[in-house]
Amino acid sequence: MKGVEGVVEVSKSRKVMKRGLSIMDLILRIIAIAATFGSAVAMATSHERLPFLTQFVHFRVEFDDLPTFMFFVVGNSIVCGYLVLSIVLSIFHIARTTAVKSRILLLFLDAVAMGLLVSAAAAAAAIVDIAHHGNPNANWFPICQQYSGFCRRISGTLIGSFIAVVVLIILILISALSISRIQA
Amino acid sequence: MKGVEGVVEVSKSRKVMKRGLSIMDLILRIIAIAATFGSAVAMATSHERLPFLTQFVHFRVEFDDLPTFMFFVVGNSIVCGYLVLSIVLSIFHIARTTAVKSRILLLFLDAVAMGLLVSAAAAAAAIVDIAHHGNPNANWFPICQQYSGFCRRISGTLIGSFIAVVVLIILILISALSISRIQA
Repeated sequence: MKGVEGVVEVSKSRKVMKRGLSIMDLILRIIAIAATFGSAVAMATSHERLPFLTQFVHFRVEFDDLPTFMFFVVGNSIVCGYLVLSIVLSIFHIARTTAVKSRILLLFLDAVAMGLLVSAAAAAAAIVDIAHHGNPNANWFPICQQYSGFCRRISGTLIGSFIAVVVLIILILISALSISRIQA
Repeated sequence: MKGVEGVVEVSKSRKVMKRGLSIMDLILRIIAIAATFGSAVAMATSHERLPFLTQFVHFRVEFDDLPTFMFFVVGNSIVCGYLVLSIVLSIFHIARTTAVKSRILLLFLDAVAMGLLVSAAAAAAAIVDIAHHGNPNANWFPICQQYSGFCRRISGTLIGSFIAVVVLIILILISALSISRIQA
């Protein structure tokens, strides 16, 4: 059986560990904000003008020519905005290590944000794949041969989103660990 | 201050509530298994043969003509398999309401499974959209005018996946609630 000092000792080390988890949570959120913000901006500013103009080839391509890329920008912007707001709760958790309900709320919202971000990134990736390789069975031809600069750019923007998705999964794990360490 | 009877009372009602959450977890898992299994099978068996054959129009279309639909079938199958295995842990949690580590593991794996399922469903949805409406800017023409039966089928299969995604988000919330109610 533990004495009173032992219990106090355990409770203190728990508090330190939970504060450590909360600080890690804050740092990861800032990384995810940078990643989603970068992806949204890089996609929203992507366009390419070709030096020639014929009857059959479009001479200019922009991200919003493909609605899926618009969804990508909107999805990344929403998740970025949510993450900025969630910083408030994250800081609150560093101060108040015993808060439970707000941690459950944050975990749930993180899961929803992850779902939105994955869907935006996966839909864009599917279209990028068609743009690169086309699909002979459906008679869709690759457009990346003409717009190679545009294609490189939109492929690159996907990376930021996928980094943010991995960070969000780690954030969900951290929240679960923090909740489990709270004595009721 | 509560008496010993009060503490025992609270502890009992906690146990009942946690068992309730665990049983709900099991039921939701069975629903998600049915949804992902249905989606995978419906997509994997989708094909259409046209009654005519010309030089320009492909006369037969199958789901694996489009690699994204193959990814959809594989993603749904993996998540379905994982959910079947997770039933074991779910039943274990009904019996042992105080297990914490296995609940955190389950929450984490559920989040990863949700990510995989969302990406499979969103990528397939992006391709289904191109199949339905095409994209004039990229000179991709809709194929659903020819293959209307095939298109209806593949659009329908998405529903199962999206139901399973919603169920997985609820499962993550249930796990978080269960973890928070465990006294350390």
